[in-house]
This record gives sequence, C-alpha cells and structure tokens, in this order.
Amino acid sequence: MNIILASTSTLYGGKYLEYLKPELELLYKDITEIIFIPFARPGGISHEDYTRKAKDFFSTININIKGLHEFEDKTEAINSAQAFFTGGGNTFLLVKTLHESGLMTVLKQNVESGKPYLGCSAGSNIGGINMKTTNDMPIVYPPSFDCMALVPFNINPHYLDHNPEIRHNGETRETRIREFLTQNDIKVIGLREGNWIRRTGNKITIEGPEQTRIFEKGKEPCEVEPGTQL
Amino acid sequence: MNIILASTSTLYGGKYLEYLKPELELLYKDITEIIFIPFARPGGISHEDYTRKAKDFFSTININIKGLHEFEDKTEAINSAQAFFTGGGNTFLLVKTLHESGLMTVLKQNVESGKPYLGCSAGSNIGGINMKTTNDMPIVYPPSFDCMALVPFNINPHYLDHNPEIRHNGETRETRIREFLTQNDIKVIGLREGNWIRRTGNKITIEGPEQTRIFEKGKEPCEVEPGTQL
Repeated sequence: MNIILASTSTLYGGKYLEYLKPELELLYKDITEIIFIPFARPGGISHEDYTRKAKDFFSTININIKGLHEFEDKTEAINSAQAFFTGGGNTFLLVKTLHESGLMTVLKQNVESGKPYLGCSAGSNIGGINMKTTNDMPIVYPPSFDCMALVPFNINPHYLDHNPEIRHNGETRETRIREFLTQNDIKVIGLREGNWIRRTGNKITIEGPEQTRIFEKGKEPCEVEPGTQL
Repeated sequence: MNIILASTSTLYGGKYLEYLKPELELLYKDITEIIFIPFARPGGISHEDYTRKAKDFFSTININIKGLHEFEDKTEAINSAQAFFTGGGNTFLLVKTLHESGLMTVLKQNVESGKPYLGCSAGSNIGGINMKTTNDMPIVYPPSFDCMALVPFNINPHYLDHNPEIRHNGETRETRIREFLTQNDIKVIGLREGNWIRRTGNKITIEGPEQTRIFEKGKEPCEVEPGTQL
C-alpha cells in the first residue's frame, strides 16, 4: 500500500494542503489524475466547489482532479482510477454515503491493490478500523461504523491536548479516547495537526513535526517521536 | 410532563448538582425515591459508585436513590418508580443500552405520564428528538439514534462559543450544528453550562444565568434570554 492519512488538510494560518506538498509529490509520483471523494462535506460548499479547491492545489504539481460525484458509475470510476484523495468534513456523512453506495469495499480493494491514497481528517478516519474515534457530530446515521482498515488501528485526527484555561466541563479528548478503550480493544493514534501516518508496503510510520499520542487498552498513553514505526 | 434537561451536572469549580438544588426541590416535590439511570458512564467509575454520587447529593434533600442497574426486571422498576434521573457520560453508550433493553420507550411513557425526570448532559440529549447533536465520541454503535422526544427539538449540551485564541482547525460547535441542519429539519437548543430546559405540562422555558443560542434550518442562529418560552 501507498498511503498518507493526515490529521488535517490545512495548518492554522496556512494554505490548503501546502504543508504536505513535498510528501504528496512522492505519494503521487507518476500519477496524472486523482479521483477526489468530496462526500464528507455537508454544507457551506458544494461537491463542485470542494472539488475545485482540490483541483487548484493539485494543478500546482501537474495532477488533474476529478470529483467522484461527477461519475454516473462510481464503482467503475474507482476501479479505473490511478489514485485517490478523500477530503475532510463530517465522518458520519462520509461513511453513510460510502456504505450505502457500496463504495467503501470498492475503495478499500483499490487502495489495498497499491493505488496511492490520501485522506485528510474524515478521509483519514475511514482509513482506520472503524470511525468510533472521530470527533464529528453524528448528524446522520450510517448503516455501520466499520471503515477500510488500511492500517491496523484507529485514528483520532485533530488530536487536541487539554487546555486547563478552558473553564468547561465537557470531556477532554483524552477522556473520550479512554472511554472508547473501555468498550473496544483497538489502538488509537492521537494525531496532532501537522502530523500524518505514512504507509508504504507494510511499513507504517508517523511523520510530521509534532509528537504523537498513542492509546492502548490497559496501558497508560505514551508519546512517540516523528519517524516512529507503528 | 414535569422535567428538567440540564446542560451539565456540575458547574466549573462547583459541587455535583449543587447549582440546581432549589429547582430539584421543586421538580421532585413529594417524591421520596428516584430511579437513577447510570448507563451513560463508560469507565472510571462503576454504576455503583456513580449511583452513590447521586445518592449523596439527594440525601441532602431527603430523597432516596436506587440505581436502575440494581433491578433484575428493569421495565418493572421503571413502571413502579416515582421519578427518574439520568446522569451524564457517553450518549452513544446510554442510547445503545436503553434501546437494546427496550427501556427507551418504557422510560418515555413513564415520563409522559407525568413522573418527574431530570437529565444532565447525555441524560438531556435523550430528552430530545434524537441524539444527532451530542458532542460525544461514537464509541459504540446504537441500533438507532432516536430518543424520547420529551421536547419538540434537539439539545446540544455544554454548548461552547468559539474561542478565537485556539489555533486549531477542528470544526467549531456552531459549524457542527449548522452541518446538522443541512441534513435535518429539527430545531437545536445550544444549552450553555449553567442553563437548563424546564417543562411543566405543555410549557417549555429556558432557565439559568446564561443566554441560549437557538439554531433552525434556513435561519441565522439567535440568542434568547433566560425565561424565554420555546
């Protein structure tokens, strides 16, 4: 496999995908066209506009983008594609759309066959075993929480450390992930913004400038350095 | 009906349920025993310990607490109860447990018959039409997101205003609720900590010290004062 699962598409104050540009040139080496999957985006921006945003960025590295929503036969579009990019938004909406159209399995098979895959945020959540560690609001009811399991763990994108200055009693991110582990025995990668998971073949590493927080059932969470193999 | 749906059980720096004490004396007037529903709590504290916490508070207003988990026949326990209190925790776990045991409908019928009901956080979410505006992580997969519809809208507890100092690209609470409205035509009450919804008969008001933010499909969100009728 040849994949990047990124915490976010955009760094604070940065431009769309800019911080990932050198990595994307490697991921998509020799690729001339990518299928963009815009289904996570619930509002504010249409599938067309969202696809144009991806198109604008990828034109700077001479790669064409086509939105999956443009195709009548989406299974055929995925099977014929060179590579994929799933954008962020709402994971519940993305997973519901992919399951109801039967595309989750088709996409999984194509990525497992070696076609490059980039996910950001919700697009990274679906690379995990299931979507039970998303931060998103459950605005729609998917037929299943299962995802593609492109990596043997779950991802929590936009991982956020507790800010003691917030005088608020909502659960911290760490508390939520610990609660997940009371109900599931699946490793969770708390991926801070700016970091990404890189899989090439069977080698999986954590990349980016920040440390990464890893949660496992029955263990205290630990921090690992960039470059650590998972 | 005679219900309180509170944003939180505990104010920042305060004691469990303390800020609601005068209201709870009115809600539970002439009640000697309450059934406590601890099923939202996924870890860190057992059903027994969680029930004891509620018991300790309610002993100060001379009301006994029994945990629903203590009963072999939980349907019979609900049907025989004088009043209810559902504590906070994880809404997915609470809704899954109540649906799988058939108790969601039993509880709804009993509350609709006039028995006093208090919900905090997850316990308030289940008073809404569905749980699609919870903030919780989907750590388990419930058979349905439908809730008791004790009020004709949804609740977002622990409603949090955007803090521009947070240099982070996760969605704001307002963005999440607006995304909900792209997929659902259900009013959402953004209930800040310290506020609660009070229903007596057919009269529903918002109470507490803070303004409350209300979201409706096709309208700009608006702020309403304490005491506003919904």
